[in-house]
Amino acid sequence: MNVWDAIYNKRAIRAFRDAPLPDDVVERILEAGRVAQSSRNEQPWDFIAVRDRERLRQLAASGYYPFVAQSGLTVVITTPPMDVDKPLNFAMYLFDVGQAAANMQLAAQELGVGSGLGRVFKGDVARELLAYPADKEATMLIAFGYPESDDMLTRKGEPNRRPFDDVVHYETW
Amino acid sequence: MNVWDAIYNKRAIRAFRDAPLPDDVVERILEAGRVAQSSRNEQPWDFIAVRDRERLRQLAASGYYPFVAQSGLTVVITTPPMDVDKPLNFAMYLFDVGQAAANMQLAAQELGVGSGLGRVFKGDVARELLAYPADKEATMLIAFGYPESDDMLTRKGEPNRRPFDDVVHYETW
Repeated sequence: MNVWDAIYNKRAIRAFRDAPLPDDVVERILEAGRVAQSSRNEQPWDFIAVRDRERLRQLAASGYYPFVAQSGLTVVITTPPMDVDKPLNFAMYLFDVGQAAANMQLAAQELGVGSGLGRVFKGDVARELLAYPADKEATMLIAFGYPESDDMLTRKGEPNRRPFDDVVHYETW
Repeated sequence: MNVWDAIYNKRAIRAFRDAPLPDDVVERILEAGRVAQSSRNEQPWDFIAVRDRERLRQLAASGYYPFVAQSGLTVVITTPPMDVDKPLNFAMYLFDVGQAAANMQLAAQELGVGSGLGRVFKGDVARELLAYPADKEATMLIAFGYPESDDMLTRKGEPNRRPFDDVVHYETW
């Protein structure tokens, strides 16, 4: 699959078939996140990769995410927590996490695997379940799995986005 | 180019040949950012696409970025500014911007175009030059161009990243 097709066709998938993801698929997805670039190569992330069905069911309650319970893999991404005196540092962590998240989802798309993002709204639920340390915080998760139907990996019609001329300003605003 | 090769081989490029990027290449890169997903489909970004050599030279001073002056295209990304009472909202904007930035850079890689990121440290320089409104803030820019040598688009040796077993935690931390 070429890069443009992966970018253009990737949609948020929130309905998965009950089928496990093979180990090599899981590893490829995680590897795509691991090799992502980051500011000063800090790699501020850790990836907690959950595949156990019962744990996925419990993890679904960290937000209201039935699709996490159905997924074949959900990756919970932790970073250092926000320091209220330096909120921009945390924003930069999330910029880097955004790049790693895109890598993982595009690598998945190439393998016929769909993905859906979620915020971790209930950090206490996630922390108790996944046992990450006090100096880490989970903000985002990504659920991966084979979509309910394969055609969900192909976009039909124009994406629902702001028009090009609204988003892009040439030379100056 | 397949997705995995683009992800694996993409390196930060900070030395560009003095060669303009064709319009269709510029449009493809910007389009890859435009179609990116975002939280609640808010698309919190605007892309200011600078190609004029003199403006690029001036923009280089928004950080210390000689590679911006050399680039064929530098995209300055604006979002709503940080509200100090809701710093997490801004962090989420930057997560979304990170995904759009990854899309643009991977789409560029497929077209033989390198890219390098920079923080906009001197927002006043950028604002005066690009005339974006007071309710927008520029945090990140991405410089694009043909790299000084083509082999800079291929990774040689293992990427300088934390080992897989350090980054990835299966099931629990």
